[in-house]
Amino acid sequence: MKRSVFLMLFFVAVSCAAQELKPIKLNAPDLKRTVTLMNAFSNRKSTRTFSDKMLSHQDLSDLLWAANGINRPKEGKRTAPSARNKQDIKVYVCMAEGNYLYNASTSTLDPISKDDVRPMKAPICLILVSDNNESWGALDAGIVSQNISLFCSGADLATVCRASMNKEELKKALNLTDKQTLYLNHPVGYFK
Amino acid sequence: MKRSVFLMLFFVAVSCAAQELKPIKLNAPDLKRTVTLMNAFSNRKSTRTFSDKMLSHQDLSDLLWAANGINRPKEGKRTAPSARNKQDIKVYVCMAEGNYLYNASTSTLDPISKDDVRPMKAPICLILVSDNNESWGALDAGIVSQNISLFCSGADLATVCRASMNKEELKKALNLTDKQTLYLNHPVGYFK
Repeated sequence: MKRSVFLMLFFVAVSCAAQELKPIKLNAPDLKRTVTLMNAFSNRKSTRTFSDKMLSHQDLSDLLWAANGINRPKEGKRTAPSARNKQDIKVYVCMAEGNYLYNASTSTLDPISKDDVRPMKAPICLILVSDNNESWGALDAGIVSQNISLFCSGADLATVCRASMNKEELKKALNLTDKQTLYLNHPVGYFK
Repeated sequence: MKRSVFLMLFFVAVSCAAQELKPIKLNAPDLKRTVTLMNAFSNRKSTRTFSDKMLSHQDLSDLLWAANGINRPKEGKRTAPSARNKQDIKVYVCMAEGNYLYNASTSTLDPISKDDVRPMKAPICLILVSDNNESWGALDAGIVSQNISLFCSGADLATVCRASMNKEELKKALNLTDKQTLYLNHPVGYFK
């Protein structure tokens, strides 16, 4: 009897663990993409409808590196400047299966929670959060946002920069503290 | 006597007019620049020292178009998105000889005043101003700022995004109203 209870508990534990989100290792950025900077400016636009198709792993990896990844590994410095180099902008990645925090140092998506809280029907949504004061946090968020918009423009991805979202729901799902402010969300997907 | 006074006034008037700032016509953007988007992300950094050399007319023209120019002429839409498409960010261009407002519709720099109010010793300084509310204005300014940073990165130009500046002095020199907020300044020049 004891043994069967033990075995049952063991299988429940294993099954729960299997359902938990695991960290996702991202690829190194593909610096050989050939699209020119001027084409990215030229084609930059806001798009509000998306294909259901999930982003390729390379597109997802490159998108996050472009958004706020480390472009000078020796100094740990980023593609996006930030007020007093506080590197205050956190990029959360919301997908159907759950939510992750982009970790630029380890090039991973670290699991946060399993709720599907994407504000629009796109395969992923990036959420920009800062614990800087309101005006500087907003400036820093705008900077990261434009990295996202230009990368999308250059990679034939659809996106739109949005300030409106259900902040209470997202705050809970992303385990944010009261010192953190949700600034922008960027649904991203392929064109429909 | 009357005639000589008239002549004197005439020459003073002509001489003043000659000293006044004139609108500067910008070139169409050079969309054939070959630098790639990924190289622009890769090389993005903040630089605080600059060569004295003035920007070439094409670099200046392309910089402003990239910052907040019109990339979809039929709709009058911009390289930078803005909250509710208010296109609220005004880009002022401060140079040694005076200050201008970038007019994206006519591709001109329209004269504002002659004081040299550049916050750093760079040949030009772009000043980002908005009449949107504080948080949205800051988001929109951050977006335009990153267009500037990435264009500079791709064009071998040095720049830094700065929130600190003498706002009272600039407000007077740029003839700003009380509804307009100075968000960021971007000194731009060639590398020293």
